[in-house]
Amino acid sequence: MLFAPRGIAVIGASRDPGKLGAALARSVAGFSGHVALVNARRPEPSAGIYGSVAEAAEHGPVDLALVCLPARACADAVAEAAKAGARAAVVYGGGFAEAGPEGERYQRELADVVARTGIRLLGPNTSGFLAPGLTASFVPGAADVPAGRIAVVAASGGVNHALAFLLTEAGHGVSLAVGLGNGVDVTAADVLEHLTTDPHTSAVALHLESVADGRRLTDAVARLAATRPVVALVVGRHDVGAFAASHTGALATSWRTTRAALAQAGAVLVDDERELVDAVGALSLVRLPASADPGVGVVTAQAGPGLLLLDQLRGRRAAVPELAEDTRRALAAVLPPLTYQANPVDTGRPGPGFAAVLQAVAADAAVDLIAGYALHEPGAFDLVEAVAAAGDSVPLLLAVGGTGDGVRRVRRALLDRGVPVTGDPHGLAAMTGALLADARARSRTTAEAAPVAPTRPDVGPGPWDEDQAKTLLDRLGVSTMPRRACADRTEAHRALAELPGPVAVKLLDAAVLHKTEIGGVRLGVRTPQELDTALDALEAAGARRFLVESMAPAGVDLVVGARRDPVFGPVVLAGLGGTTAEALADVALRLAPLSREEAAGMPAELAGRALLDGWRGGPALDHLALGEVVEALGDLLVAHPELAEIEINPLRLTAQGLVALDAVCIAASSHCTGGGD
Amino acid sequence: MLFAPRGIAVIGASRDPGKLGAALARSVAGFSGHVALVNARRPEPSAGIYGSVAEAAEHGPVDLALVCLPARACADAVAEAAKAGARAAVVYGGGFAEAGPEGERYQRELADVVARTGIRLLGPNTSGFLAPGLTASFVPGAADVPAGRIAVVAASGGVNHALAFLLTEAGHGVSLAVGLGNGVDVTAADVLEHLTTDPHTSAVALHLESVADGRRLTDAVARLAATRPVVALVVGRHDVGAFAASHTGALATSWRTTRAALAQAGAVLVDDERELVDAVGALSLVRLPASADPGVGVVTAQAGPGLLLLDQLRGRRAAVPELAEDTRRALAAVLPPLTYQANPVDTGRPGPGFAAVLQAVAADAAVDLIAGYALHEPGAFDLVEAVAAAGDSVPLLLAVGGTGDGVRRVRRALLDRGVPVTGDPHGLAAMTGALLADARARSRTTAEAAPVAPTRPDVGPGPWDEDQAKTLLDRLGVSTMPRRACADRTEAHRALAELPGPVAVKLLDAAVLHKTEIGGVRLGVRTPQELDTALDALEAAGARRFLVESMAPAGVDLVVGARRDPVFGPVVLAGLGGTTAEALADVALRLAPLSREEAAGMPAELAGRALLDGWRGGPALDHLALGEVVEALGDLLVAHPELAEIEINPLRLTAQGLVALDAVCIAASSHCTGGGD
Repeated sequence: MLFAPRGIAVIGASRDPGKLGAALARSVAGFSGHVALVNARRPEPSAGIYGSVAEAAEHGPVDLALVCLPARACADAVAEAAKAGARAAVVYGGGFAEAGPEGERYQRELADVVARTGIRLLGPNTSGFLAPGLTASFVPGAADVPAGRIAVVAASGGVNHALAFLLTEAGHGVSLAVGLGNGVDVTAADVLEHLTTDPHTSAVALHLESVADGRRLTDAVARLAATRPVVALVVGRHDVGAFAASHTGALATSWRTTRAALAQAGAVLVDDERELVDAVGALSLVRLPASADPGVGVVTAQAGPGLLLLDQLRGRRAAVPELAEDTRRALAAVLPPLTYQANPVDTGRPGPGFAAVLQAVAADAAVDLIAGYALHEPGAFDLVEAVAAAGDSVPLLLAVGGTGDGVRRVRRALLDRGVPVTGDPHGLAAMTGALLADARARSRTTAEAAPVAPTRPDVGPGPWDEDQAKTLLDRLGVSTMPRRACADRTEAHRALAELPGPVAVKLLDAAVLHKTEIGGVRLGVRTPQELDTALDALEAAGARRFLVESMAPAGVDLVVGARRDPVFGPVVLAGLGGTTAEALADVALRLAPLSREEAAGMPAELAGRALLDGWRGGPALDHLALGEVVEALGDLLVAHPELAEIEINPLRLTAQGLVALDAVCIAASSHCTGGGD
Repeated sequence: MLFAPRGIAVIGASRDPGKLGAALARSVAGFSGHVALVNARRPEPSAGIYGSVAEAAEHGPVDLALVCLPARACADAVAEAAKAGARAAVVYGGGFAEAGPEGERYQRELADVVARTGIRLLGPNTSGFLAPGLTASFVPGAADVPAGRIAVVAASGGVNHALAFLLTEAGHGVSLAVGLGNGVDVTAADVLEHLTTDPHTSAVALHLESVADGRRLTDAVARLAATRPVVALVVGRHDVGAFAASHTGALATSWRTTRAALAQAGAVLVDDERELVDAVGALSLVRLPASADPGVGVVTAQAGPGLLLLDQLRGRRAAVPELAEDTRRALAAVLPPLTYQANPVDTGRPGPGFAAVLQAVAADAAVDLIAGYALHEPGAFDLVEAVAAAGDSVPLLLAVGGTGDGVRRVRRALLDRGVPVTGDPHGLAAMTGALLADARARSRTTAEAAPVAPTRPDVGPGPWDEDQAKTLLDRLGVSTMPRRACADRTEAHRALAELPGPVAVKLLDAAVLHKTEIGGVRLGVRTPQELDTALDALEAAGARRFLVESMAPAGVDLVVGARRDPVFGPVVLAGLGGTTAEALADVALRLAPLSREEAAGMPAELAGRALLDGWRGGPALDHLALGEVVEALGDLLVAHPELAEIEINPLRLTAQGLVALDAVCIAASSHCTGGGD
């Protein structure tokens, strides 16, 4: 009813061309259903302007009310529309939660009307939506956006229009384009759910500024991505909080967590709106089969742009495989001997053989898609003909350089054949990267068994000291070093005698958060004399009980944990340990529960991942073993709402595998802690 | 003569439309000077095709020979052209150094002709150049690139054309666009030098794949950047070596070093060709005065795109200052009360007040340029008029969203007024970032005193053990801890007694590269007993001499050094110490010699720079003190060609300042070493 009404009413229709109500009345003029203009203060029955929605509804159905009134008048107008039979409304104006306490009150009133009447409400504070046949937007020129197969779901009305215009300029059209504004009722998740069954939508562009209900959003993305690719641009990488709040009245959600959650749900992430347009444009035409690592065949008519492309593809970790012997023979038969015939394939000046080159590369078993670059060379070479002759045994993405109407016609013809096309190597890399990311995401989500219902290991009442936290880890199957909790010095000496190797001796007290900083940790203790020295020091630091633990072998330190995100709930993290990694915030995030296979993919996202790969002869990480630890921590938090957080820091990668050296477990409300040195 | 000939000859002119010679003949048809077609094998005097250049030269001047022949015939043809009076030539075809041993021979023959005759040669293996009035390119459509104020200097002919076309599509034109190809004679440095005095060029786009003579290039960039902004795109961030070599026959230069050297010389760096077009387009119209940190006023008619822009500006570390009280008052007078009037300024729906908003923000003392976003709203709002009314007290950059001819006309009108314009927030951020980077670079290069001629501290003959390397550091004014080189155990015991605090005891041998790995370092030695244990261990590891040194206080470890780059000569580096930072290759680079002020800017480029800024109550770096150390190491390498490398690893940042904990000094040929644990 919101996006496909039988009839609409513009409430607050105006003759003043500068007013919203006038702009809206112009925009909806092309709508083929019933259009009623309403102005309570200046009804002009002769000019078709009604004094109320109820009156308008007598002349035809009013499913959708487009409300162009000041904030203070909107709640009443929406209530009146609902009473007159409207099932949906758009509130355009600002002056709500983004504008201070008074506005917050107006927004609450709107929410009350929604709750009371069941009307669906888009906005407030939005420039509306575009659907084929209905331009429910006050932005002049919005009607120039053609119908097409891409849906835009944008946090902001301005971004909604900006994206719709950019897509139009790139040769695409929209099946729906929605700006959510303050989102008092209809949220991104609602629109994504609507799109899951929309036959006109092939791909979805999602723009997010803040997220209210994280799990509803990720569930909607996951369901939608199963049948239609979702490309997401998340704002707020840097500190934009004050301005963002002024904009929609909501604080920005954590950029990292939101991105991680969306990717996990199967969305393709992009960094800016240009990349968004390339990515969603390509995915609206072509989707690869699910694949962990599709191979890209690069074909270029000019080596220099091909090199720019290859550099960018490597940056996106695209597989650009060696071509098979057969493929090379086929290429040698059509290309001059001087050209590069590996991968990339440099055709030299393109000629009639270009189609044969595309065919040969497409026939290579390692190639799942072709990314091709050519300058538009009118008279010398007909790219559209070559593409037609080459057939479509694997998907083809193209960038065509050039200027003027000629190259625009070529790009149009290629799009009409279903070939994604852009104008430069960067755009081609963005398109290619999007297809790869989508294929990889589906390979992951389909390969993965649904997370099993987490068991509930006994966690005890808390607070947990380091020994108790590690006992919990033992139950979860996470390795720890042999240790003894010691009530006095005698027990500590017995522990030294019985435990293998040099030991660490630590203050044991659930109430102490940072042992190291108060001198509560002594390492490398070997002899009873050294132990006495160590115990003296710990007692001086306030220790009454001690943890004596065998020292772990050297290795690379990681940090893993699980915590509760206010928007997304249980979240797991894995990163490199140590101060430098911490300063760089080099961590990967996922929502819990998650499978060990999903968790095993987290280290690949770390900037310092080379350290886990046998750096300088050191140990190499068993990714699945790490995945099991992370999965267990995530399951624990899911099963135990009374836990706020559990962290292993460090989790050491040694030649003998992973071992937890310290652990902290924090209760949901009391913030009591175990170890933490 | 190369780019502005009185007359030209096409050598290898052909009637076969698929041949280079035919394409070239078509391209140069519009040239207003003397045009001669030459074909030695099929002269047709009646059709104006001469049998030789000499014959052609009888009919008019032939300053420039455009050679469209197979590789094996090119050297002779160029030699003949030189004899007939040509001062320059372009060799278009491939089959030279990029194509194996035979091609390398042909390329050497070309180089010989250049050396013998003094003719200037562009290419081989290039699609040529475009200059207003002369399309010396075989690419169809190249003549559609309009004359303008931007020069393109590209390693590749294909990229040269791709960029010229992208600039054209963005509304710009070129003063010259050159593809260097294999660069046997004319290099990027040559063209940049030519542009330094070109009155038609306002800004330069530079595309680099490899660099032959680093210092000539950086000198040329520095001279050019003093009067004309240079925007550089360097290929090879990722491993593209094999394909790159196939392309121009040269190995890719280090991407990091090349980027660092160009930035130091005053170029603006970009990451892809789209950003290049935005950056050089903006800089061809506007250049800010030199400034260490210009303030950006952000004005947006739509909050959502404004938020995308702000996020990107923060990522580029742009200063977006708070507006003054006066400015806010002025804004409050023209804007509705609900709009955000800080910085960004959100105008809400733009109206006639837009000009007043621009004026108010421009008048703010903290604002050096304005970045503005608006959707094209035909009928509602005339952006061009508003810009005209606002005046130009500070530079204005704009992005205008929209689709169709209307928005294209608006963008054209803005460009014609000298206002840089693009279509989306990302492009606007790229333009803004480019203006900021250029202003900052000039502030740096103008503020900086020319590096003083380095003094020549005595370095001794080498090889240098750790003690000798540290003695060298002492002479350079770099702090070290108190230490003694000890010939035997007695001396070591005396050192322990005399030096303050616990000591480190190390194997002292210029021939041992990695002391730690063979057990040659013992830390925290406090007592004679501990010293004996340590000395036993070192002797077991092969030590004959010992270094006894007071332990340094805790702190943050850096690594600094100087080495010789094969392309750029002496290069200094500064980075964070430790394995994680090393795995991330988190280092900043500069060419030496350099001033301490320039070196002091290096830590700001490190990803982990937060660690140097008083991380968790730790010490904060005195950037100028670090600059002095780096400057000294650079000067040392410049003054001493016999040194290959000197590295301090770690250089520890302590509460008492910087102190060198270990040092390695390596001779240029022998690779003998000092410390290095």
